[in-house]
Amino acid sequence: MNVIRFSTAVVVAATLAFAPRTSATPPDQPAPESIASRYRAAADEIIRHTMSGNDAYNKLEHLCLTIGHRLTGSSQLNEAIDWAIEALKSDGQENVHKEKVIATHWVRGRESAMMIEPRLEPLRMLGLGGSVGTPEGGITARVVVAEDEDALRALGDLVRGKIVLFNKAMPPYDVEQGSGYGPTVKYRTHGARFASASGAVACLVRSVTAHSLRSPHTGAMRYGDADRKIPTAAISVEDAELIARLIRRGIPVTVKLEMQAKTLPDTETANVIAELRGTTWPDEVVVIGGHIDSWDVGQGAHDDGGGCVMAMEAINVLRKLHRIPKRTIRVVLWTNEENGLAGGRAYAKQHADELNKHIVAIESDSGVFTPKGFSIGCADERRAEAAVRQMNDILSLFSSIGPMNAKVGGGGADISPMKPAGVLLMGHRVEGSTYFDYHHTEADTIDKVDPEKLSQNVAVLATVVYILADMPTPLGGDPDP
Amino acid sequence: MNVIRFSTAVVVAATLAFAPRTSATPPDQPAPESIASRYRAAADEIIRHTMSGNDAYNKLEHLCLTIGHRLTGSSQLNEAIDWAIEALKSDGQENVHKEKVIATHWVRGRESAMMIEPRLEPLRMLGLGGSVGTPEGGITARVVVAEDEDALRALGDLVRGKIVLFNKAMPPYDVEQGSGYGPTVKYRTHGARFASASGAVACLVRSVTAHSLRSPHTGAMRYGDADRKIPTAAISVEDAELIARLIRRGIPVTVKLEMQAKTLPDTETANVIAELRGTTWPDEVVVIGGHIDSWDVGQGAHDDGGGCVMAMEAINVLRKLHRIPKRTIRVVLWTNEENGLAGGRAYAKQHADELNKHIVAIESDSGVFTPKGFSIGCADERRAEAAVRQMNDILSLFSSIGPMNAKVGGGGADISPMKPAGVLLMGHRVEGSTYFDYHHTEADTIDKVDPEKLSQNVAVLATVVYILADMPTPLGGDPDP
Repeated sequence: MNVIRFSTAVVVAATLAFAPRTSATPPDQPAPESIASRYRAAADEIIRHTMSGNDAYNKLEHLCLTIGHRLTGSSQLNEAIDWAIEALKSDGQENVHKEKVIATHWVRGRESAMMIEPRLEPLRMLGLGGSVGTPEGGITARVVVAEDEDALRALGDLVRGKIVLFNKAMPPYDVEQGSGYGPTVKYRTHGARFASASGAVACLVRSVTAHSLRSPHTGAMRYGDADRKIPTAAISVEDAELIARLIRRGIPVTVKLEMQAKTLPDTETANVIAELRGTTWPDEVVVIGGHIDSWDVGQGAHDDGGGCVMAMEAINVLRKLHRIPKRTIRVVLWTNEENGLAGGRAYAKQHADELNKHIVAIESDSGVFTPKGFSIGCADERRAEAAVRQMNDILSLFSSIGPMNAKVGGGGADISPMKPAGVLLMGHRVEGSTYFDYHHTEADTIDKVDPEKLSQNVAVLATVVYILADMPTPLGGDPDP
Repeated sequence: MNVIRFSTAVVVAATLAFAPRTSATPPDQPAPESIASRYRAAADEIIRHTMSGNDAYNKLEHLCLTIGHRLTGSSQLNEAIDWAIEALKSDGQENVHKEKVIATHWVRGRESAMMIEPRLEPLRMLGLGGSVGTPEGGITARVVVAEDEDALRALGDLVRGKIVLFNKAMPPYDVEQGSGYGPTVKYRTHGARFASASGAVACLVRSVTAHSLRSPHTGAMRYGDADRKIPTAAISVEDAELIARLIRRGIPVTVKLEMQAKTLPDTETANVIAELRGTTWPDEVVVIGGHIDSWDVGQGAHDDGGGCVMAMEAINVLRKLHRIPKRTIRVVLWTNEENGLAGGRAYAKQHADELNKHIVAIESDSGVFTPKGFSIGCADERRAEAAVRQMNDILSLFSSIGPMNAKVGGGGADISPMKPAGVLLMGHRVEGSTYFDYHHTEADTIDKVDPEKLSQNVAVLATVVYILADMPTPLGGDPDP
């Protein structure tokens, strides 16, 4: 582990240093200054300035409207990367540059799914990223429906030569339980492998959403150790229900699937870097970012244009306010998050030598909704816990925006490759009830983004990175940097 | 006016007869028996039986899954009509037959809209019913955006040779104000006429919905007295916003619209009729129904498969319970509601001689949601008001289902041609917050229909038509039939 500065002893010390004011301080002594109270004036200024007007929505509109979606390998992704570089330079950021990344290059091609029995009905579908195509002329076969792996297994030999439909429903959003994305997305990711192992010729997956207006949701799939790669596509909830209900009524269903999808030779793409260089310890870094690529549908507005412009605008706001912290704040717009994570992996590799100087890495990749706080992870769990306590103090600064909290949890896909190096990872959390309605669809568009909520997120992130880059003791760690 | 039996004097008498129990009845005399109390046992039986199991959802599944959508002139509409006849016969209904209707025959054909400037982007569109097609090769033109007629007028000569986009947003659903459908749908219905008068070459309309997942909404349009018929299509909210925002940012937008839509010679279709014949006054009729046609997308589940099966199942439930009222309950499944109303007009004409024996006509055409009551209209407004008071008494029988009320208002498109003949019209009301999310789209599918709510609607309608067909005094009218 190459994070030498954060020993357990130090974590404990930091924990005590930032204990709540209700701790056993004798009543006749002043309470130790909390991080929040030390930075309240700065926070108020940053919040007030950001909420009274900023350039984030304008940036996001440009990205969504004039560039649009941007899958790895597309000309639009190159355009988006070039635009981000120009925008960051035009904002006056420092050290603005691209860092080369070699990534997978999957293309969708023409695709369709048609129910041909019991009646002709075009199915609303999107091939899954990474899928092979069908042979010319498509694949026509009877459909068998399974809710999950167990149900598929129970079908036994009936699956051979058929198209499997995984009709696993995502539960409605629940404030306590969250989205239920994990158990549902399993069939998008692995369904083709399961179906292939059972002798199927293709795999359809019910779209991963609890709310559909006949809108298919794409996403990544992996063949893993599958002997045969069979083509796989998501169909809309409505189409999955149509097929499942017909079959439940004893009516056989035949579908013709045609996909020209293929994986081309790897392509060159890039992470985008920009900095607000620190005044005192410029080689210590607070990373903040989102991913610049998107799926090849919609506009990638919530996923993850929003996360990109939040980071871009966070340092823009700070620079305009001449709020230059002691450490460097580095914006990273990762490439290829959606279908490979090559950007996140490349960043961790290319910056391996300085990861021990990465104070924290923050990723925003959950859409532009009301900010709710952060989930914090670290290879050193005690450090994550200490960071959670300190962040809960800092988040009290945002009472004018709404209640927020920090908790131990995951950080984000693009920053996860930094975890083995001991970097403290923070996922920026937002209200999540509608994110998966739009996720990976034609409907992830700028009109779904509320400018006010975007500003709230910029205000929170600008304040948080300013504090984390400026406070004497690194978050969750060394009291004497 | 050919409704002789309902004089003003009689309406007043009926009003008094059904005044609330809180009226000036001396405390030592029993209150006059209300309709609700007279029919409470019957209502409880009908509700209990219906909620414990009925065939409505099975009927609706069949219609939606194995027949699908059914626009006038399509083979599916013929299939749906034949299926309804067979289902009603199989339920043991009487006088089951078709009544011939001649109606318009519009076909969509292949259609597309492509943004070609500033970048290639397929727009999600649905041509509007009744629109002409484009010339072969389509229409390619710059787009001008107007929110409404005034905004279009303000553009003056800029409109000549352009494609007009009416970007009129439907407001979010409001419990007090309702859907805001009326002021918004104006541009779907009349937009092409307005645009044509301003010299436009085609007209695009923002879909009439407050909630979109890039889902275009079709619907009827009319050229009225337009000199030039220009093609017109709805585009999704997202696409309307894309175009409007690009233009607001000073970026010109060009669209290529291709539509093969055309109106063929009139076609023969039919209303479906079935009866539960009354025991005492069988020539007096309570009509209940919905429309059997739908738009040519989705499955017409809420619009209006649900209304059809509610009526079919209402008399099925009554017949199974041997609850045969004194008057006849007639199910009418109107044809061609969506793009012509030929079914509703034909029914009123073909039954003109007996409309004076139509006690009431009830239409369900607002989707299958929690039942909320009825809106009641009549050429004789005092009769409508009297009916509202009586219906509020009757609706108290449904406290186990939920609060309902009656109010003066419209009845429904298909029954409206009976209004001049003085027939009392009742529109069956349901909770309306999501109806227009699905309305006239690919997403109006069976999976959106809650079986429990469908049963609630059947229970309410079966009970209401039983009471209205059985009570000695016709609703809102003659105390001595």
